Amino acid sequence: MKIRNFAIIGGDLRNLKLAGLMMEDGNNASAFGFDNVKTESPLAINKGLHKIIEENDVIVAPLPCSNDDETIYAPFSTAKIYINDVFKMMNKRQLFIAGRISEKIIHLAEVYKVYYIDMLKREEMAVLNAIPTAEGAIQIAMEELPITLHGSNALILGFGRIGKILAKMLYGIGANVHVEARKYSDIAWIKCYGYKPVFINELENHVSSMDIIFNTVPALILDDRLLKKINNECLIIDLASSPGGIDHEKARHMGLNVIWALSLPGKVAPVTAAKYIRDTIYNVLDELGV
Amino acid sequence: MKIRNFAIIGGDLRNLKLAGLMMEDGNNASAFGFDNVKTESPLAINKGLHKIIEENDVIVAPLPCSNDDETIYAPFSTAKIYINDVFKMMNKRQLFIAGRISEKIIHLAEVYKVYYIDMLKREEMAVLNAIPTAEGAIQIAMEELPITLHGSNALILGFGRIGKILAKMLYGIGANVHVEARKYSDIAWIKCYGYKPVFINELENHVSSMDIIFNTVPALILDDRLLKKINNECLIIDLASSPGGIDHEKARHMGLNVIWALSLPGKVAPVTAAKYIRDTIYNVLDELGV
Amino acid sequence: MKIRNFAIIGGDLRNLKLAGLMMEDGNNASAFGFDNVKTESPLAINKGLHKIIEENDVIVAPLPCSNDDETIYAPFSTAKIYINDVFKMMNKRQLFIAGRISEKIIHLAEVYKVYYIDMLKREEMAVLNAIPTAEGAIQIAMEELPITLHGSNALILGFGRIGKILAKMLYGIGANVHVEARKYSDIAWIKCYGYKPVFINELENHVSSMDIIFNTVPALILDDRLLKKINNECLIIDLASSPGGIDHEKARHMGLNVIWALSLPGKVAPVTAAKYIRDTIYNVLDELGV
Amino acid sequence: MKIRNFAIIGGDLRNLKLAGLMMEDGNNASAFGFDNVKTESPLAINKGLHKIIEENDVIVAPLPCSNDDETIYAPFSTAKIYINDVFKMMNKRQLFIAGRISEKIIHLAEVYKVYYIDMLKREEMAVLNAIPTAEGAIQIAMEELPITLHGSNALILGFGRIGKILAKMLYGIGANVHVEARKYSDIAWIKCYGYKPVFINELENHVSSMDIIFNTVPALILDDRLLKKINNECLIIDLASSPGGIDHEKARHMGLNVIWALSLPGKVAPVTAAKYIRDTIYNVLDELGV
Repeated sequence: MKIRNFAIIGGDLRNLKLAGLMMEDGNNASAFGFDNVKTESPLAINKGLHKIIEENDVIVAPLPCSNDDETIYAPFSTAKIYINDVFKMMNKRQLFIAGRISEKIIHLAEVYKVYYIDMLKREEMAVLNAIPTAEGAIQIAMEELPITLHGSNALILGFGRIGKILAKMLYGIGANVHVEARKYSDIAWIKCYGYKPVFINELENHVSSMDIIFNTVPALILDDRLLKKINNECLIIDLASSPGGIDHEKARHMGLNVIWALSLPGKVAPVTAAKYIRDTIYNVLDELGV
Repeated sequence: MKIRNFAIIGGDLRNLKLAGLMMEDGNNASAFGFDNVKTESPLAINKGLHKIIEENDVIVAPLPCSNDDETIYAPFSTAKIYINDVFKMMNKRQLFIAGRISEKIIHLAEVYKVYYIDMLKREEMAVLNAIPTAEGAIQIAMEELPITLHGSNALILGFGRIGKILAKMLYGIGANVHVEARKYSDIAWIKCYGYKPVFINELENHVSSMDIIFNTVPALILDDRLLKKINNECLIIDLASSPGGIDHEKARHMGLNVIWALSLPGKVAPVTAAKYIRDTIYNVLDELGV
Repeated sequence: MKIRNFAIIGGDLRNLKLAGLMMEDGNNASAFGFDNVKTESPLAINKGLHKIIEENDVIVAPLPCSNDDETIYAPFSTAKIYINDVFKMMNKRQLFIAGRISEKIIHLAEVYKVYYIDMLKREEMAVLNAIPTAEGAIQIAMEELPITLHGSNALILGFGRIGKILAKMLYGIGANVHVEARKYSDIAWIKCYGYKPVFINELENHVSSMDIIFNTVPALILDDRLLKKINNECLIIDLASSPGGIDHEKARHMGLNVIWALSLPGKVAPVTAAKYIRDTIYNVLDELGV
Repeated sequence: MKIRNFAIIGGDLRNLKLAGLMMEDGNNASAFGFDNVKTESPLAINKGLHKIIEENDVIVAPLPCSNDDETIYAPFSTAKIYINDVFKMMNKRQLFIAGRISEKIIHLAEVYKVYYIDMLKREEMAVLNAIPTAEGAIQIAMEELPITLHGSNALILGFGRIGKILAKMLYGIGANVHVEARKYSDIAWIKCYGYKPVFINELENHVSSMDIIFNTVPALILDDRLLKKINNECLIIDLASSPGGIDHEKARHMGLNVIWALSLPGKVAPVTAAKYIRDTIYNVLDELGV
């Protein structure tokens, strides 16, 4: 494999891990924005932003790139790192990779003629991230329920990336896996894999016998009418980003146990998450031929 | 469920089975084009084409609809059934469903203002048909190989519908499942499911150790260069429609054991295939609200 | 099913749940030894020990039966419940069922001519209990590790009841499952199920690449020599009752992360555990024909 | 690994394959009793029985050892090979390994003070042989049934070695797997693995809805009363050696489709079967320390 030069700018401990992984693969990696953390790694840390950007070809910012559209997300940095400054220092043959790059930052990149890539737009990254999300959801279910997942009635709302992996894992543990979908072709796939398909308009006949319901769809599915049919001992885990798939307020009002679990990969498996970021960055570079 | 009236026109024994299944569900079904076959079913057979079309709402032709673009495929009929005639007798509130409807027949339908649906264009039908295709491929492999699939090195070219089901089944039997793909996101999915991913440009490093290779992609993958690396005892099953994914002539020349297995669902599991046709027709009608 | 009369004497909340389950099945159940807990169940609680024993056929004590060989384990009872007293009140046509009945209590039962059964000696109970044990172990692993179990290198020491279920679940989640065994026939079974067999004398070649090791064997396997080869980031979970399978002191000394997890069923899945107790009691009674 | 010297005496092509495998592993192997077959292997064949026995340490006879208790089973030999002669030529430090060694041959071995081992008595051999047996049964089912195994109702009678592997494979293909057992602990295991348990005395409630029934138990289970409840389109495959588990005559009389499939490993997967024999022989020698 080609030796590459990476500048890791900001991010949490995952990005420090990422830099370490890249060096283990024989690459050069420098990091900036970690002056508040102690590390024993042989990483060149905090050389000065300008020097680090100058010396490397690929500038890796975190996922998410920024929380304020002005500075790089860098919880371990004492000083703020302005995206503006980073872009100003970059030249045309360099690449900026980060996750969830906002419209405003995209606009800035275009102004500075910076070539950027949003890793979250890479399909393989989205697929791989579904793995720690599913595992995290299973961990929460195991912690919360007084029954085993084995033999339990589990319902997954949606058969997208997370729905598919979650169904496979729950099935592997021995749950009685039901999956809701609204497309006939998804229903066919659900049958193929041996799960019990629940067509969306038959949901009301199934929710009452469930021990656990996982939502993966960012659109209201469990409305007032369906929530009323849900057993009081049923656990509901919402994995969908806002607005989620559940009327959370109504559910709380009814005394249902609902957990809204977001950003699981970084929380439950930061090391694995770092590996997925590394693999995706390598794929991007392989595709670009650099 | 609503009671519906079906006219089954032509087709092989699968379509007779289909008519029987529809009646078991409480529908009315008549069949035409089976005067050469004996059946004990209570089906109204051979009432006369005109009468049968007149009395029913949904006209079901076979899969494939026709082999000559003029007559309905009807191996058990003494007389030819002209598509022309069928369309002429149909009115606007009726529906014509068949599989693999050619351009020419589509044109004819438009001339006669016949509302038609090609069931093979339905995604759920394509997904479900992958099940008997995969099982048929496994049956052939079991028959041909002097080793068990359990513990064998199996390689699937392509991770589309057939590739996905076939991988799942081979894994379930205990094969050492490798899947080739060219997209990074497919490679990610293959990893998710626990199979061994083989990126297309790494094929040459893997083909030599395979005991069986299944091709599912209708584009030349196993060319001269790769065929030369394949072990003489390896079995190759091509499931892709013409031109297939293998240089069949070269492979034969090299003495490789290649089997081109097409149209498996009707051959290995006609009853299951009939059920999938029925389910798909019901889905179409549910969607149309008729 | 026959209606039966159960007296539940002592135990934790699991036994209260057990009484509820028995009533849901149409049986009569009374409980004694729960005066310190509030319950809304329609159970007849605390009628008086004598009355409860007199009125019922099957006397169910907890698992474990006792911690001091004198009194029934009854954490929610203000008064002590002497086994002596219980046995004295029982007659010959009654049955005493509990778990882990000590030699001393067995002796007492024989003196009072009480017919007793230790539910833990029932093979089906031991098998079923392996399910929550395996799930609990997986939950701990998910909580402790910064990586996903999916794709991790997991090693299970022993292929008995817990080893079998744990291997199946880890495999279903997508771990790279290795199982150690010392019998050739177990090695054959491990291959059959698709796991990677590790013959006991090859352990030293495998432990260093593991991310997690589960021990299920109550005999020292991970000794000084093997512990030295284990990666510092590897998690070790010992599921074996005393003395366990790991030199715990040495492991701690080396800075290895070892968790000794015992009595998982009651902790992670008390409701499921109560169901298994119920099912086993029913099996016992069916076999006895009472 | 230690280099060993094997004399392969008689047997079918599986044993020739076995000799080849042993040589690939770096051992010496000579064969006798194959003068009627052409082979291109570098095996020393037909050196003369006396010389071959003299030069080697382990004498491997076929499975089954003999069909007449007098001569080694050797379908490719022109001359008969008398067991008597073989034993006479052997000395005390040599080992005789074969499969299904009869009482009479055992007696002979004792007379000649020959140390013998019956490989079929090795538990690992019996376990491994269950793999090709299960695959062979699945192949037959695929060939005979007009439906896919995926989605079919399959019932396995017995949860021993073959039952366990067969259940796993059918489940992996996507069948709706039911397993009959008579022990509560087996019922518990069947639940653990996610199959549907059928207690033996509930068989009559389940047989009528099955698409395929596999028997693995050598004792009459499907008697007149149960056969009468079985659907006419159900396929029955008996894998048990005589007397089998089905009243075959009655079943034929009722027009049921029953197939009695025996000795599948050698038929469906001779090469895999040879590998299992090799592995088992190596295990035996490892255990003996020779």
